[in-house]
Order: sequence, then C-alpha cells, then structure tokens
Amino acid sequence: MKNENTICALSTAPGTAGVAVIRISGSEALAIADKIYRPVKAVPLTEQPAYSLSYGKIMKGDEVLDDVVTGVFRSPHSFTGEDTVEITCHGSPYIQQEILRLFIANGCQLAKPGEFTQRAFLNGKMDLSQAEAVADLIASQSAASHRLAMNQMRGGFSKELQQLRSQLLHFVSLMELELDFGEEDVEFADRSQLIRLADDIQVMIARLAHSFSVGNVLKNGVPVVIVGETNAGKSTLLNLLLNEDKAIVSEMHGTTRDAIEDIINIQGITFRFIDTAGIRSTGDEVEKMGIKRTFQKIEQASIIIWMIDTTHFNKEIEYIADKIIPKTKHKKLIIVFNKIDKISPEEQQILEEEFLPHVPAERLYLSAKYKKNTEKLEKALLKAANLPELNANDVIVSNLRHYEALSKALEAIERVGEGLKTNLSGDFISQDIRECMHYLGEITGDITTDEVLGNIFKGFCIGK
Amino acid sequence: MKNENTICALSTAPGTAGVAVIRISGSEALAIADKIYRPVKAVPLTEQPAYSLSYGKIMKGDEVLDDVVTGVFRSPHSFTGEDTVEITCHGSPYIQQEILRLFIANGCQLAKPGEFTQRAFLNGKMDLSQAEAVADLIASQSAASHRLAMNQMRGGFSKELQQLRSQLLHFVSLMELELDFGEEDVEFADRSQLIRLADDIQVMIARLAHSFSVGNVLKNGVPVVIVGETNAGKSTLLNLLLNEDKAIVSEMHGTTRDAIEDIINIQGITFRFIDTAGIRSTGDEVEKMGIKRTFQKIEQASIIIWMIDTTHFNKEIEYIADKIIPKTKHKKLIIVFNKIDKISPEEQQILEEEFLPHVPAERLYLSAKYKKNTEKLEKALLKAANLPELNANDVIVSNLRHYEALSKALEAIERVGEGLKTNLSGDFISQDIRECMHYLGEITGDITTDEVLGNIFKGFCIGK
Repeated sequence: MKNENTICALSTAPGTAGVAVIRISGSEALAIADKIYRPVKAVPLTEQPAYSLSYGKIMKGDEVLDDVVTGVFRSPHSFTGEDTVEITCHGSPYIQQEILRLFIANGCQLAKPGEFTQRAFLNGKMDLSQAEAVADLIASQSAASHRLAMNQMRGGFSKELQQLRSQLLHFVSLMELELDFGEEDVEFADRSQLIRLADDIQVMIARLAHSFSVGNVLKNGVPVVIVGETNAGKSTLLNLLLNEDKAIVSEMHGTTRDAIEDIINIQGITFRFIDTAGIRSTGDEVEKMGIKRTFQKIEQASIIIWMIDTTHFNKEIEYIADKIIPKTKHKKLIIVFNKIDKISPEEQQILEEEFLPHVPAERLYLSAKYKKNTEKLEKALLKAANLPELNANDVIVSNLRHYEALSKALEAIERVGEGLKTNLSGDFISQDIRECMHYLGEITGDITTDEVLGNIFKGFCIGK
Repeated sequence: MKNENTICALSTAPGTAGVAVIRISGSEALAIADKIYRPVKAVPLTEQPAYSLSYGKIMKGDEVLDDVVTGVFRSPHSFTGEDTVEITCHGSPYIQQEILRLFIANGCQLAKPGEFTQRAFLNGKMDLSQAEAVADLIASQSAASHRLAMNQMRGGFSKELQQLRSQLLHFVSLMELELDFGEEDVEFADRSQLIRLADDIQVMIARLAHSFSVGNVLKNGVPVVIVGETNAGKSTLLNLLLNEDKAIVSEMHGTTRDAIEDIINIQGITFRFIDTAGIRSTGDEVEKMGIKRTFQKIEQASIIIWMIDTTHFNKEIEYIADKIIPKTKHKKLIIVFNKIDKISPEEQQILEEEFLPHVPAERLYLSAKYKKNTEKLEKALLKAANLPELNANDVIVSNLRHYEALSKALEAIERVGEGLKTNLSGDFISQDIRECMHYLGEITGDITTDEVLGNIFKGFCIGK
C-alpha cells in the first residue's frame, strides 16, 4: 500500500497573509527539497536531524525566490509517517505558487485532497475513523463539534470498536470450535452465556448507533427556523444573535456564515438557522409555491421560532397558527412576541393569558430592536435543543458512514441473538458474527476498498 | 525602543485549511506558551534548543484543544529578533481562535497589523525600507513585482542609500571643517572637487528617483483600457488573457482578481485592465456622464486597446476615433480588429491599407472567439509596456514614500551643487547636505517618528 511518489501542497489557507506553509511528504522529500533550498548554515536537509528548523533561501535557478524557514520530520515520526519537509514562506500567492512549481519541476506531484491524511492512514498512523475525524476537526465551528471530532481523532471511538471486535472474535472462535467438533454433538460454550455475550455486544453497538442522533446535531448544528411575517423583526433578531458570537479574528467570521443559512454558536452549541420565506395567506400561485417550500423547510427543523409583531395582530396570525401548530408535534416551539416596548403591561398580560393557551410552547416577550429580554432567547434555544453535556472522553458517533455501518452491525448482532435463542445452526450464527465484525472493520478501515477510501478523502481539503 | 509585552497572532491566511500557524513573540513567548502546551516528550519550550520542533498538545484546562507542532526560535535569531514560538495547529477557525484566546488569557496581547515586522525593525533586524519590502513581497502578484520587493528586502536599496549617506557625511565633514577655520579663510577642499562630488551624488539620487516610473508600474501593473462598442468582444478577449494565466492552486485565483479591475500576468509583468463603460454617441445625459468617466479612466491608462468589430463598421467607429485618437499622444494605442474569421482576406487587406493609415498604432487582426492570432496581443502588450528586463540585483524604487523622500533629497543636493557653483556660504551648503542626508535617513528609518512608523505598519496584515 506504500506510496512511492513524493507529494506537495499548500497546507495553509490560500490567500495573502504573513506566512504560508508548503508541505512535501514522501521518501524523496528531503532530497527534492535540497535541490531548491539553500540553508544559511549550509547543512543540507538530508543531513539535518528530525524535528529541526533551519533558515535559508528558496532558489529559482540563481535567483532568490524567498527567505524561508524549513522544518524536517523523519519517517515514521511525522503526520504521514513519511519523511516530511514543511516550508514556511512569505504568504504571497505568487511565492506559494512558484515554490509549488519548483517542487513539481523537481519531481513532486501535487497532492490530491486529503492525500497527506490518506498516507497517514495507509502508513498505520491512524485508523480510518481517526482520519475522518481530522477533516471534521478542521471543519469544526463550535466547542461541541470540535470536542466530538477531537475525541474521535484521539481514538476513543476506535478503542471501543477494537474492544467490540475482540469480543466478537472470541465469540466467533467459541462458535467455530464447536462447529469443528460438530459431528460429535459437543457443546463447548454455555448457550445462555453466549446469549448474554450477544446481548452485551448488541447493547454496546446500539448505544453507539443511537448516539448518532446527538452526534449529528452537535456536528451539523441544531436546525432552527424562524417563521412569521416579514416585518415581525426576524432579521433584527438574527443579527442580534450573530453579534453575540464575538470572534477575535474578525475575518474568520466569513468562514462561519453560509450564503443561505446563518450559523450561530451559543455556549459551544451550533444552531443552524434555515432561511425561509415569509408566510401569509395568498391567492398567488407562485407565492403559494414559496410558502410550500417554507413548510418543507420547517419539516427539517427541530426548533421553530414563531415571531409575532405584538403591534400588528391580524388575520395572518390565525392563518400561521393553523399552519404551524400541526407541524410542531415532534419539535420544540418558541413563540417570540416582539416589539413589547410598544405595548402596555396590561396588553402583555392579556397576551400571556389568552394567546393559544393550550399550545405547548416556550413564550418570550422581547424587543429585538432595543435588546430587551433577548438573552432569554439564547437560554430558550439551549433548553429546546436539549443536548447532553459532552465530556472529553465521551464516544459519540457523528459520521453518517459510521452510523450506517453500525446500523448494519446492529442488525447482524441482533440476528446472532435471535439465532442463539431459536437454536439456529452454528454455521449461520458464526456467519452473522463475522458480518457484524466486517461492518465494524469498515469503520476503522481494517476492511476497506479503494472506492471507499476515494470517497472519504475526496471531501478533504488539499494540503491535509 | 524595545517592547516589553509578548504578542500573538494568526500568521497564515484566515479560513479553513489543513494547518494554520499562530506566532507569538516577545520576552515571555516561551514561558507563556509553556502554560498551555504539553509536549509529548515533556521538555518545556523554555528548555528546548533554538530552531527545534516538538510535537504536543494545546490544553484548555484539562481538555485537549489540539495536537500541534511547535517551533522555538530564540532571540536574536528570529524574524523579530525576540524569542518566538510558532504553533502549527489544525486549520480550523474555531481552533485558531481558541488558541489565540488562550494566549491572551495567559498574558499575550493580540498583535497589531505589521507588529512582528515593526519589532524586527525596532530590534535592528532590518531597516525601514526592508520592512516595507516585506509587505510588498507578500502582496506581490507577478514575477516583476516579486523581484522588486525581494531585491529591496534583501537590502540592495539600503546598501545604496548607506553608500550615499557615507559620501554625504564625508562631504559635510569637509565643509564643516572649513567652517571651523572660517575666519582664517582657509579652503581645505578643492571647490571643483566638491562640485564633482555633489554632481555624482545628484546623479545617483536622480537615477533612484527616476527609477520610480518603472518601479511603480512593475509593482502596481501597467494600466490598460479596452475601449470599443460592447459587442466588439472585449470580455471574450479578457477571459482569453485570464485563462492564459494558469495557476497551480486554483483558489489562489480569487486573490489576483479585483471586483473592478482584471489583473493579468504576461511573462511576469502585471497588466491592470481598467474597467470602462462602452463608448457611443448618445443624447442621454446619464449615459453621457458614464462616457465621460470612461474618458477619465483612459487618462489613467498607458496602453489603450481599441477593439473594433470588423463585421459592424458604422458611424460609431468614427465617433470613437474622434474621441480616442487625441488621447493617445503619450500613450500606446493597439487597434484590435476582432472577428476577422467573418471577413474575407480582401476585406482585411482593405482594412490594413485604409483604416486611419496616419494614426501611429499597433494593429492586430484576430478572432477572440476562435483564438486566432490572440497570442499576438500578448506580444503587443509587452512591446507597448516597454519595460526594461529586471535583474536580480537592480535597485528600482517602487514605494511612493521613498520616491517622495528621494525627490526632496534630490532638491537638496541640487541646491548644494548650485551653492558651490555660486560660492554660497559654507553654512548654507552644509545645511543642504544635512537636509539631503535627513531625507535619505527617512527612507531607511535612521530618522523616523512614531507617526511615520504608525502609517507604514498599519497597512500590513495582522500576523506579519
């Protein structure tokens, strides 16, 4: 499985900045880098110790292309497990590109997306679920999604899977020993003990598989829709929540906002605000279609914020109530009465007592414009999300591929339990145990195909 | 001038990527980093040798925030001249931000734009013109602008200025020695020799000052406008030129294109295409204003490409000719006859012979759509730009601040020559020499103020 060629890529974000890092990895990394690098102290990289830095110049023929700092990592003590050179050059796109050109001219290949991590996997530096966690870690935008990815990268999940696999291996060897002596009708293992073992494994796999419902939300964010008439103050409220999410490096903001969806972190939890069109009763066919789409989006949400302009109670509110309330069965509803600065305390009290009293909902009375009571919305959102506090060692599945493999492993181990209880032939039971092991092995990459690997790593960024 | 506080910043481009580099610099850099960094080998950074790398974890309390590689640089052998730590973390905006938060919580200050380079200047690692070249180097988008900045950063310009300053110092000491013995009416220096010295210095300063006309174009690009009717094929031609500029890292493209102007590199020279509205005769007042603005933009260009759709000869062409030709006096005109695939060779010959035969212009006959003869446009642009081949050691001034200081120094040294020739009092001559030295000293930063420094470094990116 070893790769013979040496790869290079820009590993930092593209663009103009103070510095940029170009990484090259492979058996020829040091020798190729020596062709274009002139260290000030004249010791070639091939002779420099592992984990050392040197200062020098990148030469393009006789011309100095840049003054750089170069780090040397030696196999197997590098991210990829191969010899690796990291060049920290000035962050000019022109220089970045020219250095890559020089490496390619001297025998490197431009790395494919995720190829460094793929090599780390192929060289046994990490299993497949850990490699996938690298991509999740890089993409993480909140404390919770970061912690999920970090736990997975650090191997908590892999360890549980390894334990399961060794339990299954023990299980299958017991079963197969019996099969070898099948004709003699010996029963080596106590059936009830085997049933208990199958049940235990089933419980463990089920726990992992079911953790996906939490893991998926932590990773991708809690889906929230805000519905209501357009003048209800929806965008003011969104901006208010966005501003709460103070970033030290302001340019980073650009990376956390999507063109369509607003992503807001509240106490480490990501909330994904799905954009919807306003809702109102209409005869217009085109507008009806827009409203239909809005209702489809409401289906995707787990929290619905219904904003009501308390100064404009009209027929539309009844229309929206009729449309919204049936949708909220398995969702949380937060009714936000906005512009309460414009109404009297008596009017507010009437609202509190008389507005849809039988609809189960959190009710907030606030002024988005004057930032009155808006902090209550954050608390209400956290309460509605109802997510468990995540600890540093919790194993939570957040990857759809893992969830699917676990679901199949769960089905297989369920069949094992069934089979034992109904005295199915050991042949079939043993086959189901092996199938269960197979699916768990797909997660860690003990069992894999080029196609699976290709699909996983193509989602990575270049340079990782 | 030394800074006591320790600063930190993200030094790579913001955004999601494989890795990111966070740099901290200052007397407490190692000690502060040790508070949050746990190296696998348990040797704190304060005890690690200079130019070493280590692998470890960034801790946020008891939780692992990231697995990182950390480089140690020790004063004075670092970019800033101070102790410096560079953390290579995973390129997640969340992680980047949290590491910065941790550093700030442990006593670092967030670096101001250019503060690392400013410290390098204040600690005597480079003079001011070299520090400015760092920013130019990072911003360089073409081989020529890169070479300009590199030469300046590597100190070619500084060396010439140093030579000039020492010549001027020798000069002024000769003058002032004479002044000390003034009452005895002694003449220590041969006047004609002094006049020759002043002339030599004047020639050197003038050469530097005049190089700005080339340096400015190399740095900022050759301004080009394309005029003609909108259907003449202007955007097809631009796209064609843009595609020729192949970038290895496709995302980098985003950094070389401006919302308003297209920047195209041809053989290492940047051409800046200024966007203009189409030109046509019109009675509409609003449209007239647009056309007026187009003519103002033509004033800024040094090359005008006039695109003519050879299949649509009409009155508009005469109108444009009347408007354009008077503007081309000190500019280069390239007339591009487009869509020649649509006309017969005979028609082309008539064009060649009869279209404005007395107007001095390069004439190209091409098809932008079918890429016929388009390579000739690149050659014509390079020829029209008429820029000298730049060598690795050429000293060319490309910074407006330097040009202004040189212009003032030139005026001062001209007064010195004048004064010597008209037997002006040595007092005045000596003062003019010192003024000349002063302006040269402003370039290198030997003479500077906080205000000047503030203005220079505020244009830098954060993290450099």
